[in-house]
Order: sequence, then C-alpha cells, then structure tokens
Amino acid sequence: MSTLGPQAGLAPALDRAAKAVEQTLEVVLPKPHGLHSRIHEAMRYATFAGGKRLRPFLVMECAALFNVDEAHARRTAAAIEVLHTYSLVHDDLPCMDDDDLRRGRPTTHKAFDEATAVLAGDGLLTIAFEILADAKTHPSAEVRCKLITRLAEAAGADGMIGGQMIDMVAAERSFGADEVMLLQRLKTGQLFEFSCEAGAILGEAGPAEQERMRQYAADMGLVFQITDDLLDVTSTAEKAGKAVGKDQEHGKATLVSIYGIDGAREKARQIADRAVAALAPFGGNGAALRDLLPFLLTRES
Amino acid sequence: MSTLGPQAGLAPALDRAAKAVEQTLEVVLPKPHGLHSRIHEAMRYATFAGGKRLRPFLVMECAALFNVDEAHARRTAAAIEVLHTYSLVHDDLPCMDDDDLRRGRPTTHKAFDEATAVLAGDGLLTIAFEILADAKTHPSAEVRCKLITRLAEAAGADGMIGGQMIDMVAAERSFGADEVMLLQRLKTGQLFEFSCEAGAILGEAGPAEQERMRQYAADMGLVFQITDDLLDVTSTAEKAGKAVGKDQEHGKATLVSIYGIDGAREKARQIADRAVAALAPFGGNGAALRDLLPFLLTRES
Repeated sequence: MSTLGPQAGLAPALDRAAKAVEQTLEVVLPKPHGLHSRIHEAMRYATFAGGKRLRPFLVMECAALFNVDEAHARRTAAAIEVLHTYSLVHDDLPCMDDDDLRRGRPTTHKAFDEATAVLAGDGLLTIAFEILADAKTHPSAEVRCKLITRLAEAAGADGMIGGQMIDMVAAERSFGADEVMLLQRLKTGQLFEFSCEAGAILGEAGPAEQERMRQYAADMGLVFQITDDLLDVTSTAEKAGKAVGKDQEHGKATLVSIYGIDGAREKARQIADRAVAALAPFGGNGAALRDLLPFLLTRES
Repeated sequence: MSTLGPQAGLAPALDRAAKAVEQTLEVVLPKPHGLHSRIHEAMRYATFAGGKRLRPFLVMECAALFNVDEAHARRTAAAIEVLHTYSLVHDDLPCMDDDDLRRGRPTTHKAFDEATAVLAGDGLLTIAFEILADAKTHPSAEVRCKLITRLAEAAGADGMIGGQMIDMVAAERSFGADEVMLLQRLKTGQLFEFSCEAGAILGEAGPAEQERMRQYAADMGLVFQITDDLLDVTSTAEKAGKAVGKDQEHGKATLVSIYGIDGAREKARQIADRAVAALAPFGGNGAALRDLLPFLLTRES
C-alpha cells in the first residue's frame, strides 16, 4: 500500500521552488557592505524570513510547461519574490497595518526601525526591476521589457498598490461581493497572475497561452484569498502563525462575511474546479499546479 | 546694448524642459479613476508641485547632444522625474525627515495621510520603470533595458537609497570630507549622473561618451550640493522656499561645515570649472549645460 497521498508531488515541488529561489536571492541581493550596510541587512532580513514561496513555485511550474531554461525562471521568480517582500514590509508599517509580527518574528520596522523599513522596501522594489532587466534573465531584451511592463502593471497604482488603496477605503464604507472581489484581484490576484503569465512570456508563448495562465492564476488567487479569509475566522493564531480575527475586528467585508463560512467554502470549491480545468490542455504536465488547489482548500495556515 | 546676460540661454532651456516633461507626465500618470482614485490623486499632487525640473533639463539637453528623438528624451525625463518625486515623498515622511512643507505647500503625507504617501511613493517608483520599458521610449529593447538597469542602479540600495541610509547614520557619527562626498554622490549625485548618461544611452553613443556625461553630472551634482548646503547656512526660509539651518540643527557634517563658507565657495568654483571642461568636445553645443554651472554658483533658492 502506497503512503503517498493524492497531492504527493506538491510538497516536493514547493520545496524545490523555495530552495531554488532562495539560492538565487542569495546571489542577487547585495551582501552587507560599506557605510550603508544597514540597508542590505534589512533587505535580507525581510527576504529570508521563510514563507511558502508560493509565487516562485508558480513561476517555476508554469515556466516548466513552456520548456523555459530553469536559470531564467529562477531569476524571474526571485524578482517577483523581492517585489512581494517589499509589499509586506510596507504593508506592516505602523501607518499601514501596524503589524509587529510576520511569520512569527518581528516585522522589519520592529527589528530595525521605520525609516530603514521604508528604505528596505524601496530597495527591494527597485532591485526587482534590475533583476528582470539583466540579460541573465533572458537573452531577448524584448522578453525582458515585456516582463518589466507586466510586473509594473501588476504591482502598480492600478494593480497591487491600487488594491492596497481600496483596502484602506474599505474600512470607511460597506463593500459588496463585487467590490471585495475587485479588491482581492488587485491586492493579491495581479501578482499571482503575473507569476503564472511570466512562464508563458519567458517561453515566448502566444497571447492565448499567456491569457490561459492568467486565468488559472486569477482563480487560484481567489481560492487562496477565500481560504485565507476562512482561516482568519476559523483558525487560531498559533496554527496560522499570525494574528487572526483581524478582518472582523476591523469590520472589513470579506467573501466569508458576505457568503458565510459554508457559502464561502462552496464558492472556493467551485472556483478551484475552474482553475484545474484551465490546465486541461497541458495533459499530464502541470500536476503540481493542479494539486495546489485541493491543498489550498484544506490548508491550516 | 544687449540686455541678455551671460547665461541668456539657460532660463528658456529650463523652462522648455519643464513644460515638455510636465506635458508628458500629464499623459503617463493615470488620471484619477475607480475606487482607488486617491492613489492617482496623491501621485499627481506630489508630481505637479512646481520645482526646477532640473533632472528633465539634464536629460533633454544631454540627449540633444546625441541627436536623440525629443519624444524619447521626454519620456526618459518623465521617468527620472517621477522617480525623483517618489524619493521626496518618502524622504518627507514623519519617520524620515518629517517635513510638513515642500516648495511652500503641504507635503504629500500632510495633504493626504502617511499610508497614502507611502503608497503614492511606491506607485511613482513603479511607474518609472513602466515608462522606460515601453517601446514609445525607444525602439530598441536593448536600449530600454540599459536605461532600466542604470536607473535601478542609480536609485537602488547602492545608489540613492544607500545615500539615504548613510544620511541616517551620519547623525550618529562624525563624518570627514570623503564620507560626506560619498554620501552626496549616492544620495543626489547618482540620479544626476544617470540623467546625463541617459542622453548618451538613448543616442546609442559609446561607453566613453556615457562616461563623459557621467563625469559632467558628477561634478555638476557636487556644485549643486555645495551650493545647497551654502543656502542652508546663508539663506532665509522665505528665499529658499523651505526650512533652512536644518543641517546645523541636526549636527550633520556638510562640505560647508568642513571647509567653511569661503572654502566651500572656492571648492564649488573649482569643481564647476572641471564640469564645464568635460563639455569641451561638444564645441558650440551644450551651451545651456555649461551655463548651468555659473547659475548654480550664484543661485538664491
């Protein structure tokens, strides 16, 4: 009798992506040096803080569908991960979410100070584009420019930053399901979408394939968000590794507050099915991407 | 008898660059829209605040030396100006320099709030790279990637952000002339250097010409900084349009505190001569770039 569960390939794939991106991050992030070594230390502190490395996993697995050179996928994954890290560092600031802990240890502004955290976030955002512009990321400058354009769109004022802004005004008004979905699509969805689309761009696949990867990612992102909101309501801080019950406390509308716990669970299952269906054309490939969905539906942290 | 002074061409050239870059900024910055319109408003508030537009002037004038298409120079100037603006927005934050006024009106976090200012700065930094990656900035993707690489280096943890970091530790220790020069070279010099170098990159000039433009800019930047420090000591807040005497108050070492007022003035004159000499190979061209030096040596704001 096999001891392998139905998602046997997922954990090793997540682990592989995390190791690969961390090796690359070690190389691309400057080592502490000079009078300004504190900025390098803060950038590294924020980046090497564990975490699931879910976006690097998406980049690597999607890139594999298009036969992309692994070195190119790793650098692209590193760029997305430092950009994601910057967003966490700024999001945790006292003037934003004011969080003292992240993944069980002091947030960057707690471990250093607020000014250093602002600058470290700025430095991580800047180096994300520097990594992508480098010829080591792809021999074609057209491909590199496309990656940079799409990352800037996904992360910019009409992407992730716009989502953060909506999140701030959300506290002041009552949101319906459509507005909550828009908020999530911008705040977390767009970077997931780019993570998957990047594989197709690196593989110089056509627009239809780029769109297919975005579609998978958009649905996967919604499932990620709904299950995150469910954890906020149903989990303990110990299991989740971060403060829970914050949405309710701040009166923030989520898909869970709108549909209820059971309704949100059902919604997540439906969207997960659609995400898996988007991968059908890849046949036997993309197993780990498919397995991610049941994993998210049953996750405890 | 002519009423034209010796720097007659400078004011119109500065004016022309300011108008050109503001027209381009009007187009490239998103107009307020959607639930997140506050982020667009804050980005525009910070950007359309007057100011000398010195970096756009440098881009446009240096690009003209290499016969660059003006539309390309304008977009590159816009990218550098929004990046410069982001650095001011974050620098003014309470956890950084804590400034309430900038160019005689409330800083972004005063006109909006701290969280919006953090996000607006992030949005401006992000869009700087988006502008450069666009084919409208230059038909060659190789040239666009080169611009992005150099901007990221100039603005990143070993450039402008590194300079900000050194500025923070400068308050805690005593700096000599070399350390002050390094601080300035990173904090303000690198972006000046890239502004001038960008003209040569856009014109696909060789490394020697790129280096010549950087050399001019490095010296010009030092003159700019020394005269800025002199103003901090000798001007009134009314004339300078911002708080003065801040360096002394914070015990920060500057080239003025090290060399004295007369010594710093002499040093600025020597460096200005060297900057002008770097432009010799361009013969009659580059008059406005030359005229900038005597203008800086005698400026009152």
